[in-house]
Order: sequence, then C-alpha cells, then structure tokens
Amino acid sequence: MHYDASGLQVLSRQECLDLLAAAEIGRIVFTDRALPAVQPVNYVLDGENIVIRTAKGSKLAAATRHAVVAFEADEFDTHERTGWSVTAVGHARAVLEPEEISRLAALPLEPWAPGGRDHYIVVAVEQVTGRRITAARAS
Amino acid sequence: MHYDASGLQVLSRQECLDLLAAAEIGRIVFTDRALPAVQPVNYVLDGENIVIRTAKGSKLAAATRHAVVAFEADEFDTHERTGWSVTAVGHARAVLEPEEISRLAALPLEPWAPGGRDHYIVVAVEQVTGRRITAARAS
Repeated sequence: MHYDASGLQVLSRQECLDLLAAAEIGRIVFTDRALPAVQPVNYVLDGENIVIRTAKGSKLAAATRHAVVAFEADEFDTHERTGWSVTAVGHARAVLEPEEISRLAALPLEPWAPGGRDHYIVVAVEQVTGRRITAARAS
Repeated sequence: MHYDASGLQVLSRQECLDLLAAAEIGRIVFTDRALPAVQPVNYVLDGENIVIRTAKGSKLAAATRHAVVAFEADEFDTHERTGWSVTAVGHARAVLEPEEISRLAALPLEPWAPGGRDHYIVVAVEQVTGRRITAARAS
C-alpha cells in the first residue's frame, strides 16, 4: 500500500471507480459567478461517466455547461475516524442526443427531489484521486 | 416552511449554523491551478468561523490563502432519501497570531490524519445556504 505525505492511503484508479460505482450521493463542485460552488446530488456511474439528473433551467445545468468540474464522494465513520474520499475531475456536458437520453433514462437513477428532472449531465472521469484513512495513528 | 424551485426546504441562517456546529466532517471547495478542487476535512465551528487544521506546507494551506472558498457539510439517509446540506462561502485565512493559535488549539479539534497539523485555517461564514429534503414526494 502506498501512503501520501499526510499518511493517507492512496487509492488506485480502479479502487476509486469501484467506490464511485458503489456510492449513491456525491458533490459536484463548480464555479458559479466566479465563486466556488458545491451541490450534493444523487448519481450513477455509467462506465467512467458520472450521470446526474437535474432540471433543465437549474443553476447546476447552467454552471456546468462545457465546464471542467470536480465530483467528490466519500464515506466517513466519525466514531472510528476512518473512511475514504474519491474526487474525479473532468469535463461536464449536457446530454442532448435523444438516443443517449433514452439510454441514460434506463439507468437506475431516480431523482430524490420532486419536480421534473429530465435533463442529464454527464461528467467524464478524466482524473481521479482517492484516499483512505484507515485508523488513527499516533502523530 | 419555505421551499425552493426544486421542492427542497430552505433553511435559515441559524438552522445552517446549528447544523454546521453539530457536524464533524465537511468539504472545503477551492481552486487549485485553475481547476475546481475539493477536500474533506474534520472541523469545528467557532462562533461563525469554520476552523480547520492542516499541515503548514499542504496544498490546502497554499490554495486557500487569501481565497474565497466554499465549505459544505451534509448528511443523507440513502434509504429514506432524506437529508440536509449546508454550504458556506467566505474568505479563508491562515491564522498567524500566536494568541489566536493558542485559543484555537484549545478547541475540540483533533486531526484524524497522522502527522503534524498545527497550521490553522479559518473560513468566515459570510454567505450560508442550506436545504433539507424531507421526503420523496410524487413528481
């Protein structure tokens, strides 16, 4: 196992993808009017693409158009002080082709929030990094 | 109760601060070499300041110097599909005054990761927004 300068275990790309595939909630990180912005979303991993559903006119839809975004998922046990975090960085795009929309609509991705959310955003997992904190060690 | 256009309950500033005070893990959102970046951290809320400990030479320390950052905390129940999310936006600063460092060192903030982490970053909660998703409603 490989550890970084902070003593956190470095995860491989495959470990990162496996963790992203298993999680349900992540946070999309983008820029909104020149300020850093973050929004939790439920998502599904489709190959090496993160698929998100939102409303067509949403801030998220507008802000992620042709943008490079980050996407983070994590899981921590605050009692044990263990957990993992994975961050992907890649280009976001709105899905506009009817065939691709039909294919994505068949994925197990149901929006939690009420209202129409038939606009799909795909974030390509270009760079991905992950860390695991396994146990408190004496400093 | 007030709901936004997505059907999510809008939280007041005080509700947001109460949730931030109770949580232990959040995600600091910043820009790293012109790309969106996000890093989970454990933290403590000190009045209306988010206090984080890191290592002096860390990427987080460098990237947040004099920067406006976002800070997000959330908690979701993936079974019930309920939860909340709070995002603060504000200026980050490194704490350099010995008196302030002493005061912050007395806060209940113990780094999870191993290694020396005696560099404090404070993010002022300037803007704060929060949403709660209370129950799946038919769309």
